Amino acid sequence: MEGNLNTVAYGLAAIGPGIGLGIMIGQTQAAMARQPEMAGQLRTNMFIGIGFIEVLALLGLVVGYIVPA
Amino acid sequence: MEGNLNTVAYGLAAIGPGIGLGIMIGQTQAAMARQPEMAGQLRTNMFIGIGFIEVLALLGLVVGYIVPA
Amino acid sequence: MEGNLNTVAYGLAAIGPGIGLGIMIGQTQAAMARQPEMAGQLRTNMFIGIGFIEVLALLGLVVGYIVPA
Repeated sequence: MEGNLNTVAYGLAAIGPGIGLGIMIGQTQAAMARQPEMAGQLRTNMFIGIGFIEVLALLGLVVGYIVPA
Repeated sequence: MEGNLNTVAYGLAAIGPGIGLGIMIGQTQAAMARQPEMAGQLRTNMFIGIGFIEVLALLGLVVGYIVPA
Repeated sequence: MEGNLNTVAYGLAAIGPGIGLGIMIGQTQAAMARQPEMAGQLRTNMFIGIGFIEVLALLGLVVGYIVPA
C-alpha cells in the first residue's frame, strides 16, 4: 500500500469544518433575510467564524510537520 | 493490497464539504424566498461561502503532493 | 506506508469542534438577527464558546507529546 497516513489526517480534519461552515454560513443567510439592516454586522461575524473554523481544517495539512516523525 | 492511501484522504475530505454546501445553499434558497429584495446580497454571500467550503474538498486532491512522501 | 498515527488523532479531534463551532456561531447569528440590541453581549458569549470548543481540536495537535510513546 502506497501513500502517506498524514493525508488521511487531513481528510478527517476536513469533515467537521466542512459541515460546520455550511451550518454557520447557512444560518447567516437566514439571519440576513430576517433582519436585513443587520447584514453588515452579520457578515463581519461570519468572517470571524470562518477564520476560527477553517483553521481547524488547514491545521490538518500541516499537522504532519508539527508531530515529530 | 493495491492502491494509494492518498485517495482515501480525498474520499474523507469530500464528506464534510458535501454536506455543508448542501446545508448552506439550501438555507440560501429559503432566505431568498423569505426576503426576495435581498436576493442579490444573499447570492454574493453564497459564492463567498462556496469558495471557503469547496476549497476544503479540493485540497484533499492535492494533499498527497503537499505532504512529503 | 509513511506517516505518523498521531496526525490521524488530530484529524479525528477536529471533526467535533468543526461541527460544533458551526452550530454555535450559526445560532449566535440567528440570535443577533432576532434581538439586535443584544448583539454585543452575544458576541462576547460567542468568543467564550469559541475558546472552549477550539481548545478540544488544538489539544489534538499536542496529544502526541502528552501520551508517552
